Amino acid sequence: MSHPGAAVSARSAGARSLIMRTAERLYASRGFADVSIRQIGEAAGQRNKSAVQYHFTGRDELIKAILAEHAAATERHRFAMMSPLGDLAELSLPDQIRCIVLPRIEHHIELGSPSWYGRFLAQVVVEPALREYALEAHLNTPSLRRLYDAIHARQGRGRDPVRGARREAMIRQLVVHMTAELESELAREQPAAGVAAGAWRRLGADLITATCGLIGAMDAEEAASG
Amino acid sequence: MSHPGAAVSARSAGARSLIMRTAERLYASRGFADVSIRQIGEAAGQRNKSAVQYHFTGRDELIKAILAEHAAATERHRFAMMSPLGDLAELSLPDQIRCIVLPRIEHHIELGSPSWYGRFLAQVVVEPALREYALEAHLNTPSLRRLYDAIHARQGRGRDPVRGARREAMIRQLVVHMTAELESELAREQPAAGVAAGAWRRLGADLITATCGLIGAMDAEEAASG
Repeated sequence: MSHPGAAVSARSAGARSLIMRTAERLYASRGFADVSIRQIGEAAGQRNKSAVQYHFTGRDELIKAILAEHAAATERHRFAMMSPLGDLAELSLPDQIRCIVLPRIEHHIELGSPSWYGRFLAQVVVEPALREYALEAHLNTPSLRRLYDAIHARQGRGRDPVRGARREAMIRQLVVHMTAELESELAREQPAAGVAAGAWRRLGADLITATCGLIGAMDAEEAASG
Repeated sequence: MSHPGAAVSARSAGARSLIMRTAERLYASRGFADVSIRQIGEAAGQRNKSAVQYHFTGRDELIKAILAEHAAATERHRFAMMSPLGDLAELSLPDQIRCIVLPRIEHHIELGSPSWYGRFLAQVVVEPALREYALEAHLNTPSLRRLYDAIHARQGRGRDPVRGARREAMIRQLVVHMTAELESELAREQPAAGVAAGAWRRLGADLITATCGLIGAMDAEEAASG
């Protein structure tokens, strides 16, 4: 049953989504310092100068909405990957790490090229006022929490919470910033979609290899130091 | 022999340095988006509204000057560490990695608390317009180039330049962003100087362990895949 309200809210959802895509692109390519809320509205073709405020109240809510949308898409990939696996504590370290890394990679392949989210997120996590939003929305979800806990608990290692937090931080920094770095490269080189997907999968494999090596070395050091 | 010109240029150097310290602190704590050149001048106690432009011409030159100063200090530590070591290619991987990581750590211990440079640099490297300055000034110096080349050349491994570049990027991202993360933590917790120095040394040791594990795993994967 179609009614005028439905058309209005579809148009509103369209404008909202368009503003989010535009903001992400402008922030990713020019940084937070060089992009105003008003420029985002204009670049998104909104004639009303307060369109961004109308849809999001302000910059921070706009940024949270972008983070939440990508986090939800990434979580869908992670859920699909984790649900057939059973008890996470029974998985090998590489399989646990795969569940952390590959949903991010799959999300980027799905986004296609050019994407902007990788660079957007890398800027959010170093911006003092925004960092917590990224951690809450995307980098410390319940599924990631369970994975990290399983990694820390395996074989009774990683019991020191400070060392556990450091391992997590290293994995998070590698995933966030290497993703942003590949995204920049692909934006410059503009390869065909298949080549880009291959580059994302290569990054995924490298991150899994590197992370397993990193954790193995930290575990060995912890075991040796008692 | 003292003359009026010397006093003027000492005052000018003092103002220049004060502006740099102030800019670093404001950018680190509030991000590039929330800090104007004029606010930096005011916060540095400059009565002339164009003081920052007078000393640096503009934001980018100010940022380059801050990067160059810290890069020079870090290089002094690296030079002191490397000069007695002889042929870099003869060093073990952990010793090569130590020469990459520890000069950054020593520089932070020397800066004392609170420091701002770690967070400043992390923001610079993700800011599209500034990233290249950081790479040129600080993250790709001749001494680092020699160290990375020695790492790639050892035992004939790491010959694939794409894989070599990825290893380097991972090490760089870990060092830059883990340094910023510890700096934030210390700024929040404000421990005594000795405790802070211990935390920096612990991070240095963890980065060396993690990086050696990461490179070892990437090498093994490369050797296995031919």
